[in-house]
Amino acid sequence: MTRRLVTRFTERFALEHPVALAPMDKVAGGALAGAVASAGGLGLIGGGYGDAGWLEQAFAAAGNAAVGVGFITWSALRKPAVVSAALARKPKALMVSFGDAEPLVAEAHAAGVPVLWQVQTLAQARQALAAKAEAIVVQGQEAGGHGMDRGLVALLPAVRDLAGPAQVLLAAGGLADGRGLAAALMLGADGILMGTRFWASREASGSDVAKAALLAREGDQTVRSKVFDVARGADWPWHYTGRVVRNAFLDRWHDDIEALKADAAAQRARYDAAPPDDLDTRVLIAGEALDLIHDLPPAATIIERTVEQAHALLSGAPRWTRS
Amino acid sequence: MTRRLVTRFTERFALEHPVALAPMDKVAGGALAGAVASAGGLGLIGGGYGDAGWLEQAFAAAGNAAVGVGFITWSALRKPAVVSAALARKPKALMVSFGDAEPLVAEAHAAGVPVLWQVQTLAQARQALAAKAEAIVVQGQEAGGHGMDRGLVALLPAVRDLAGPAQVLLAAGGLADGRGLAAALMLGADGILMGTRFWASREASGSDVAKAALLAREGDQTVRSKVFDVARGADWPWHYTGRVVRNAFLDRWHDDIEALKADAAAQRARYDAAPPDDLDTRVLIAGEALDLIHDLPPAATIIERTVEQAHALLSGAPRWTRS
Repeated sequence: MTRRLVTRFTERFALEHPVALAPMDKVAGGALAGAVASAGGLGLIGGGYGDAGWLEQAFAAAGNAAVGVGFITWSALRKPAVVSAALARKPKALMVSFGDAEPLVAEAHAAGVPVLWQVQTLAQARQALAAKAEAIVVQGQEAGGHGMDRGLVALLPAVRDLAGPAQVLLAAGGLADGRGLAAALMLGADGILMGTRFWASREASGSDVAKAALLAREGDQTVRSKVFDVARGADWPWHYTGRVVRNAFLDRWHDDIEALKADAAAQRARYDAAPPDDLDTRVLIAGEALDLIHDLPPAATIIERTVEQAHALLSGAPRWTRS
Repeated sequence: MTRRLVTRFTERFALEHPVALAPMDKVAGGALAGAVASAGGLGLIGGGYGDAGWLEQAFAAAGNAAVGVGFITWSALRKPAVVSAALARKPKALMVSFGDAEPLVAEAHAAGVPVLWQVQTLAQARQALAAKAEAIVVQGQEAGGHGMDRGLVALLPAVRDLAGPAQVLLAAGGLADGRGLAAALMLGADGILMGTRFWASREASGSDVAKAALLAREGDQTVRSKVFDVARGADWPWHYTGRVVRNAFLDRWHDDIEALKADAAAQRARYDAAPPDDLDTRVLIAGEALDLIHDLPPAATIIERTVEQAHALLSGAPRWTRS
């Protein structure tokens, strides 16, 4: 591919393309992060809650590709050794999300590693700016997995106005193609971070059944919910919800979360007893971008298509103008 | 202003600018709709639930400006005479939202009036397409007032893929400036519809206290809620929520809606007894775009700024590209 887009993000992070992989817990392993990095994007291993053994495997699977790593802030703060071990590998970047990551930023900076801090509100963007994160990822509620309620299209330009023109900003949530990338640039971003789009890729870790379900489901079928955090005993701060695909288990409890909490032990046992591919019970994490996803290509193809489409839209944008 | 943007929307609806006024109930009166129309946009009177006397006044206040009118579908279906009277005025367009508007589309078409059908899900977009609405307005959850949960940035391109290249599409929700307009075009829209931005205008109907509050509040302070529909006895289908600014009344009941329903009569009396400008009790309807709004200019200035900014972004978009 010879077509490229050059932004603050590609320049500051020395990337060929302004596209990052969301560090999806367990889905973004070394194969996927390595493929994104090799294709010229920012590949981020999904460090998630901080599973040291899984992380070691993921870095090994990424091979020589220059990948970064992402953590869930509130969980990583409880496992400082895991973060330190990851930083000792000199990752290309550290991404943090969901909590006050100031201590993690300080440690990363001491190790010479740039930080992407994902925010879900304007108030959180103020924290990220104060901590001098190299990049702020603005995540809209459209995103799959954990997040909050603000929509990308309004929050992103608001963060740009707050941060000023020099700050690197990425857009995340509901983006799956070149239209999303071009729109994000118009709203003030310097690049995008995609999750669900890369989850539906050849290299993502996950079963064929789950990946086939991603192609069969629609954005209308997704919802932000607390059900699976309760059912899995995940210790998330209550204001974070997770966007997932509705299924029978969710429909039973979504509007009755207090009853689920009251019966948590039994329901957790029931959840854990379900086979991994029983998607009537097990969670299928995905964002609203499902409507835009129709295949399971290699990650490099996703990046190429996204950049080519955005390039065409941006090159052609003057066609709407008269003066 | 000599700069213009030409799209399917401006061409099919004979407009100077691809910007429409959301037909905000009671806020979008004749002065505001007329000002938007006179400035080259699509001015839509907020017919809301269908108050015949108010509508007559609004059309009179719009004077000779060619304005359209919008209704809440489920309410308008109960008041066919009000809709018929509005169509007899040969409005520039009829906008419908919140329900299956097929009968209203048929009546509008018989009267030679083009229809904008606002949708909040992909499933609703299928209905609007089947009814052959001249334009589909894709409303994201960022919007102020009633709506649903899907985010604009993912839903809009999905509706474009569904509708094909010839359908006129507008984007709504969280848009308040030229960045939003340019982004909407990238995502597949032919124009935008703005509510909160025009609510914060000189011509909007509303008190100075409410307008000043719009400027003081942030997007983080808004939330989608059922509280004020219950408190006002509004008969909304339960799946529609309203985005409003949090206040003391909302905070008391937002997470305890069943208790509010159980005490509805007393709380409604309390709500109705509050002075109109008691914004600790009374609802202030606004969308997430509040962060982007810092003044109360004339509607014509809003349109001019929006188009100028979008024009500059679109003209300059090739700057990101290398080939």
